[in-house]
This record gives sequence, structure tokens and C-alpha cells, in this order.
Amino acid sequence: MSRSETAFLFDLDGTLVDSVYQHVLAWKESLDNEGVHLSVWRIHRRIGMSGGLFTHMLLRETGIEITPERLQRLSRGHAAAYARQAGSGAVRPLPGARELLGFLSDNGIPWAIATSGRMETAAHNLTALGVDPARVPVVTRDQVRHAKPDPDLFVTAATRLDCDIQKALVIGDAIWDMLAAQRARALGIGLLSGGYGQQELEQAGAFRVYEDPADLLRHIDEVVARS
Amino acid sequence: MSRSETAFLFDLDGTLVDSVYQHVLAWKESLDNEGVHLSVWRIHRRIGMSGGLFTHMLLRETGIEITPERLQRLSRGHAAAYARQAGSGAVRPLPGARELLGFLSDNGIPWAIATSGRMETAAHNLTALGVDPARVPVVTRDQVRHAKPDPDLFVTAATRLDCDIQKALVIGDAIWDMLAAQRARALGIGLLSGGYGQQELEQAGAFRVYEDPADLLRHIDEVVARS
Repeated sequence: MSRSETAFLFDLDGTLVDSVYQHVLAWKESLDNEGVHLSVWRIHRRIGMSGGLFTHMLLRETGIEITPERLQRLSRGHAAAYARQAGSGAVRPLPGARELLGFLSDNGIPWAIATSGRMETAAHNLTALGVDPARVPVVTRDQVRHAKPDPDLFVTAATRLDCDIQKALVIGDAIWDMLAAQRARALGIGLLSGGYGQQELEQAGAFRVYEDPADLLRHIDEVVARS
Repeated sequence: MSRSETAFLFDLDGTLVDSVYQHVLAWKESLDNEGVHLSVWRIHRRIGMSGGLFTHMLLRETGIEITPERLQRLSRGHAAAYARQAGSGAVRPLPGARELLGFLSDNGIPWAIATSGRMETAAHNLTALGVDPARVPVVTRDQVRHAKPDPDLFVTAATRLDCDIQKALVIGDAIWDMLAAQRARALGIGLLSGGYGQQELEQAGAFRVYEDPADLLRHIDEVVARS
């Protein structure tokens, strides 16, 4: 198989599905239950990292002792709270997400999904999105050594597609996606649909910022040549 | 009574109490129940307007018919969902909020609260903050003709304090607070604690941006001279 010109490597939460705010309040509930009281906006600004890195960083900042048991309780608490939110049908694909993926498939442009979440949590969202992980490369936290902002997830996704990461586009809503893109020498495209500001994404290296998948699809000729 | 030099006019949600994300998901629940499916980040970007203006704008954008009954159902749905969130103790004062208000009182600097919410919803938050509306001027949506981004709320708050609005500081987390401040010729101070980006606040006219009330208190000499 010859290497394709450009591949699209997508983050999942906040990029293809509208799930960031539910994750934020699920983490808040889990942290509150552990006696860790953090402002919600600070949790929001860390979302998109690996859960392990995220909780490590928060506990270190608050000076609370980091034990394996505490990390496990935090992780389980978040997964349970998120499943409650996502299970009630409140989490939906973002506008244009299915259409964008369909457009790429129709035009023979390879694409994959790379998420800092674990498959247990991602499964809800893939179902909402209509993506079958048996047919589309989906790289989760479980499959790599380091999660974002390390580039492992996106590099692995490019390898699965047999694409050169340096010719790939990384599409994400969080600054961690943009940092990972730069570290992998890919081009980062930021989406506002995770609730971050345009400048935050640009400062983290986004070479272009769109509102959501629908807005990216409307401007697709700015970032890829159709074959 | 002589007019004071500088008054502090505070927004409430996201500025003194950590309640923005709960409001966002409460509005989402209410809109979903009405069949209006909006991305959560778009709801977040509108929070801080009056509820009436907010729902009018959202319904107009989605092309759904605006009827008094629908607006009332949306408003009631939001209030009920928010009360569930806030009633469980999940809403807390932001770091430094009580200390900042205490500092102003101790130094004879007048302050008031001006919120686009109604007293019914604000009451939860004032309780969490330890503010007694019988002793501190609290201007709510019920008391003015137009809410933010109209300057009515802040102008009324300044009048209650017998202060000149043009010498006042307006402290808020949303671009609507900053626009209202400019329209009243007050100076706007932005806080990141509502989850907006620094540049969004600066572009709306904030002359200074801090993380949260604690960070503002640490830098208080930048914005007011102590007597």
C-alpha cells in the first residue's frame, strides 16, 4: 500500500462528540467525593490529558497525597459519573461530525480516532457517533504508553493508517491535542466545540481554528486538496 | 453622604460563586426537553445574559417558534435543573471570594452584586457566599427593565451605593459583563473563573483579567488605591 498524502487524526471528546462539559462535572463530582475541591474552570482546562496525568497534576497542585488507591477511586468515580450522564442520551455527536467523517471516507482520505480516554468510556461516544472500532482505527489510552500531550496516540493512529505523521492533520478541541500535534510535527487544527477560546488554541500551535466539525467541513479546501 | 471614589460592582455566577458549568448543563437539560438541540459550548458562550434574552436568541438562531409558553417552560426547566445541582452542595464560593468582599468592607470600599439571574436562583448562591441581601445591595433581573449586556443592572447597583458609575469597577466573568461595563462607561475587570478565554474578555473591553477573586485580591493595588 502506498502512503497517502494527508490523513485526519481526530480527538474524540469535544471534537467529534459533545461530551466535554459532562466530563468536567463528572470529574468535579469524583474529586469532591475525595475531598479535593477545585474550581470547575480549572478542571475544564485540564480535560483532554490522560486521566492519570490529569489527576496526578491536580493532586500535586493541591498538595494532597497521591496514592494508587486514591487515583483508582478518582478514576472509577469519574467513569461512573460520566456513564450516568452519557447513558441518559445527553451526549450527542457534534454538528457535522458524521458528515465530515462521511466526506473523508467518500473521498478516500484516511482518518482515525485517537483519544486519551479508555475504551470503556469511549465506547459510549463511538456508539453515539456511529463509528465501529472494528472498521476504523480507534487508538485509546489502553494501547499506548503515554497519553496526550505526548504524541504517542496520534503517532500510533498514523501508523495504523500507514500514513506519515508529518503529513497528517490532528483535529482537536484542547491545547493538549495541539501540543501533541506539534511534538509529532503534524499540523494542528483547533475546534471551539470543547469550550476553549480561539487564542488558547492558536497559542498552543493550531494553524487554523474552526467552530466545530460542520464549520471545518465548510472550509475543508483550506486544509486538504481533494483528489 | 459624599460620593465614594471607587465602587466594586460584582457579577455573581462565575465571578463570586463557582456555578457556571452547572447553569450550562441545566440550560442544556431544559433545551433538550423542549427538543432544542444546541452544542453545549454555544450555551456556555451565552450564559450571563438575561434568561429571556438568552432563550430568545437561541430559539431565533435555531428557527424554532418563540411562544410565551415555550419561554416559560424553558425558564422553569432551567430553574428546576439548577436547583437540583445547587441543592446538593455542589456549588461553592470561588477561591478568595469571601476574603475579597471582606477586604473591601474592612477598607470602607463600597461594593454591590448585580446579577442577570432572578432572586429565586440567586438565593442559593448568596447563601453559599454568606451574603445577606438585607445588608448588601443585590440587584437582580427582577428589579430592572433590561438585563446584561444592557448596563441597567450595574447602573442600578451604583445608584444604590450612591456611587458614580463612571468611577466604578465592574467585575465579571462573561463578555456580557464587559460590554455592559463599557456601555455604562465603567471599567471592566475580567475573571477566568467562568471558563472563558482571556482574549475573549479583553476583546470585550476588560482593562485587566485575573484568574479568580483570590488572584484579583492578590493584585488589588493594580485597580484601586487604598484609603
